[in-house]
Amino acid sequence: MTVRLLAILGVGLVDPGTPVLRADDLGLTRGDGCFEGCRVVTGADGVSAVNKLDAHLARLSRSAAAMGIAFDEPAWRGLLNQATSAWTAPGEAAMKLLLTRGSPTGGSPTGGSPTGLVTISPLPEDYLRQRRDGIRVVTLTRGTTSDAFTDAPWLLGGVKTLSYAVNMAAHREALRRGADDVVFVSTDGHVLESAVSSVVWSSGRELNTTPVGASGILGGTTQELLFARAPAAGWRTSVLPARVADLQAAQRVWLIGTVRGPVDVIDLDGTARDRDAAVTDEVRRLCGFGP
Amino acid sequence: MTVRLLAILGVGLVDPGTPVLRADDLGLTRGDGCFEGCRVVTGADGVSAVNKLDAHLARLSRSAAAMGIAFDEPAWRGLLNQATSAWTAPGEAAMKLLLTRGSPTGGSPTGGSPTGLVTISPLPEDYLRQRRDGIRVVTLTRGTTSDAFTDAPWLLGGVKTLSYAVNMAAHREALRRGADDVVFVSTDGHVLESAVSSVVWSSGRELNTTPVGASGILGGTTQELLFARAPAAGWRTSVLPARVADLQAAQRVWLIGTVRGPVDVIDLDGTARDRDAAVTDEVRRLCGFGP
Repeated sequence: MTVRLLAILGVGLVDPGTPVLRADDLGLTRGDGCFEGCRVVTGADGVSAVNKLDAHLARLSRSAAAMGIAFDEPAWRGLLNQATSAWTAPGEAAMKLLLTRGSPTGGSPTGGSPTGLVTISPLPEDYLRQRRDGIRVVTLTRGTTSDAFTDAPWLLGGVKTLSYAVNMAAHREALRRGADDVVFVSTDGHVLESAVSSVVWSSGRELNTTPVGASGILGGTTQELLFARAPAAGWRTSVLPARVADLQAAQRVWLIGTVRGPVDVIDLDGTARDRDAAVTDEVRRLCGFGP
Repeated sequence: MTVRLLAILGVGLVDPGTPVLRADDLGLTRGDGCFEGCRVVTGADGVSAVNKLDAHLARLSRSAAAMGIAFDEPAWRGLLNQATSAWTAPGEAAMKLLLTRGSPTGGSPTGGSPTGLVTISPLPEDYLRQRRDGIRVVTLTRGTTSDAFTDAPWLLGGVKTLSYAVNMAAHREALRRGADDVVFVSTDGHVLESAVSSVVWSSGRELNTTPVGASGILGGTTQELLFARAPAAGWRTSVLPARVADLQAAQRVWLIGTVRGPVDVIDLDGTARDRDAAVTDEVRRLCGFGP
């Protein structure tokens, strides 16, 4: 059990070891729900804040709307206030917001009232190591074409659902191959995203990432923050399709996620890449990661 | 709450309304687990039996192995004995076997001890209506190519995972279009499967279904039972790729699932199809459904 704080929508704080989900909750039986992973930063005075909270709530709201699950933003903000007020351990932590369709009503697979949970856990130790040492990545097919999600909202492209079994299996495959993480590639050779991160690469002062939309890629809140701030620091930013060869040819490649922050790719499909601490530190600062 | 009986692996029977899952169980947070849906038939004497139990346990074992989750078959059989012994309501019911990776250990996304649950619920009312009236179906793209799963075990083709959010969203899309269910089609036009059923079609005394393997289709235990029994009843059986036009041209099309049984398609993408009660009854009997 890694959860150190647990709050339930409509209930409030409960003991973090408490079982909370019924056996027929559609979030469990069908992965039918959505989530956000957030970074909580707590000062020496014990005051906690959630980074980019508005962006996460906006994305959770979009995910919920795409799945037809009710999202009560004021209730969520109240619950998040309770959670952050009760969290006083200085440093960083990982927060999750989980929203499921709840239990079915009348034997039909449409849920009754949604289940909402907030958890706070310590940072994964792997993340601390990857920030320090960089990350080894392998590319794996995602099985989808790069335009598969056009006019097909039922495929839930860009929706952060609880159905991440393939992401987790791909992550295990990466570990099996001696790497730390995966970058998915479409069947027609387009770079997509990592299991839980955006892919960003640079050459000179040009920062690039892959397009959302038809590709089904989830828009990353930290990548978006980076691209919003980078121009003022002298970067050009582009959103453009890429092949694995383009990543290999780039000067720098990062995986960028909310909790892990930017980590620099030191090995791509078995090819070692040199590091540039200065530019990675700059990208980290632009993403809100110190120092 | 529709669950009428709940049993937990390692615990036994508990009150069906009891919350059972912790907030960090990977079955919830990542849809990281697998399941089976089974049909329980209970006689007037209150004695219950699970149809095709061995086939379901074999598939659950394969799903668990594909995901790297421990599966203790003797413990599951013991739990299932407890559940069926306690279930005495005459008629049919829907049983679920749910196996998740459990809660993460040490901050890493590998679970500690798996969570195992057995639930029994009433048959969905939609299923009773569809058995009687037939089913209206729309075809929708699945976003994958028909050979996407070749040499890509991390895509979990043929694995009955808990990550069914897309299946559920496609089902909602079907309802939105005035239909009852969906048949998925690959990006290159091959018929795949329904959201929770196999697709079987016939002309004359030839029964056909779509191939598992490279397509990622889940092998259906009821379809397999049908194809094992049908030759003795004078049917030829074939497993072959098909396009939507082949379904339109077939004399009969059924969706075949474990709990719903075979239901005949009365409308495919807005084109009405006539019914043949005699042949559907024959297929139902071969699948173990009365009368």
